[in-house]
Amino acid sequence: MRGRAGSDVAAEALQLLAADRASLAVAESLTGGLVAAALTSVPGASRTFRGSVTAYATELKREVLGVNAALLDARGAVDPLVAEEMAQGVRVRLGAMWGLATTGVAGPEPQDGNPVGTVFTAVAGPRGTKVTSLHLDGDRAAIREATVAAALELLVDALQEARKHSS
Amino acid sequence: MRGRAGSDVAAEALQLLAADRASLAVAESLTGGLVAAALTSVPGASRTFRGSVTAYATELKREVLGVNAALLDARGAVDPLVAEEMAQGVRVRLGAMWGLATTGVAGPEPQDGNPVGTVFTAVAGPRGTKVTSLHLDGDRAAIREATVAAALELLVDALQEARKHSS
Repeated sequence: MRGRAGSDVAAEALQLLAADRASLAVAESLTGGLVAAALTSVPGASRTFRGSVTAYATELKREVLGVNAALLDARGAVDPLVAEEMAQGVRVRLGAMWGLATTGVAGPEPQDGNPVGTVFTAVAGPRGTKVTSLHLDGDRAAIREATVAAALELLVDALQEARKHSS
Repeated sequence: MRGRAGSDVAAEALQLLAADRASLAVAESLTGGLVAAALTSVPGASRTFRGSVTAYATELKREVLGVNAALLDARGAVDPLVAEEMAQGVRVRLGAMWGLATTGVAGPEPQDGNPVGTVFTAVAGPRGTKVTSLHLDGDRAAIREATVAAALELLVDALQEARKHSS
């Protein structure tokens, strides 16, 4: 991670999306709305940001985002494949070109055997899906903020990579 | 409004929900994830907070939350009845006892003929739906923060009112 604030990365992501006439949808678990809030803090976000789902209850990951039920039963909500399916699901269900997702353990308690700070972020786009695994330090607020920045950096990297392939 | 920070009101709302063994879902427009973020900043929020939908694109208010299409066509997204239907829709679709919603104009530009600072918040519960109309001053960030606090105060008032009727 490059250590930039989430709001700065959000502005860069929105600029790249607007330049590509692309759209974005977000699926959040441990960040609980903070990724969407960072994006919508930027005036004009509505040009490219369609919306988000905070699927805090595990069954909403299945019911609202379409994450595979057997996967959730077998692996729990904190899993790289769950992050990928959240990004793919919100992309399709909210009708966006790009989907971005977060899942992990913000604390203070471990979850499903995963220690606090275990985090997965995923981005789904026209050419496929990419997931990153993070092990973050700090308290609940710090872990949530670092996840927001990491997810938005993952999106920026994917948008820049897509531009290289299309140019 | 009593001027409390959103995070303080969020903690009180979650305490009241937990004491009633109740659950909550949130539908956001201008606040763009901030109401959900305030609630999930509190450790243990997952006991009562099921999740949220940020329906930033107007058509997602119809497609994801079930707001009436003719109402949206006739009145636009910034309307008290739209706020009511967002609260009712997210309550049903995310399977919660209570639904809370925000819609309005954070700026910097007016929307659908409504000046910056025009805001509606609604709460839907087992005994019906209540909506409040606000005219807020300040910049985009201030209007969004004041809306978060007002929405959560509306929820706290509704939870306290429901307790009077059940006791």
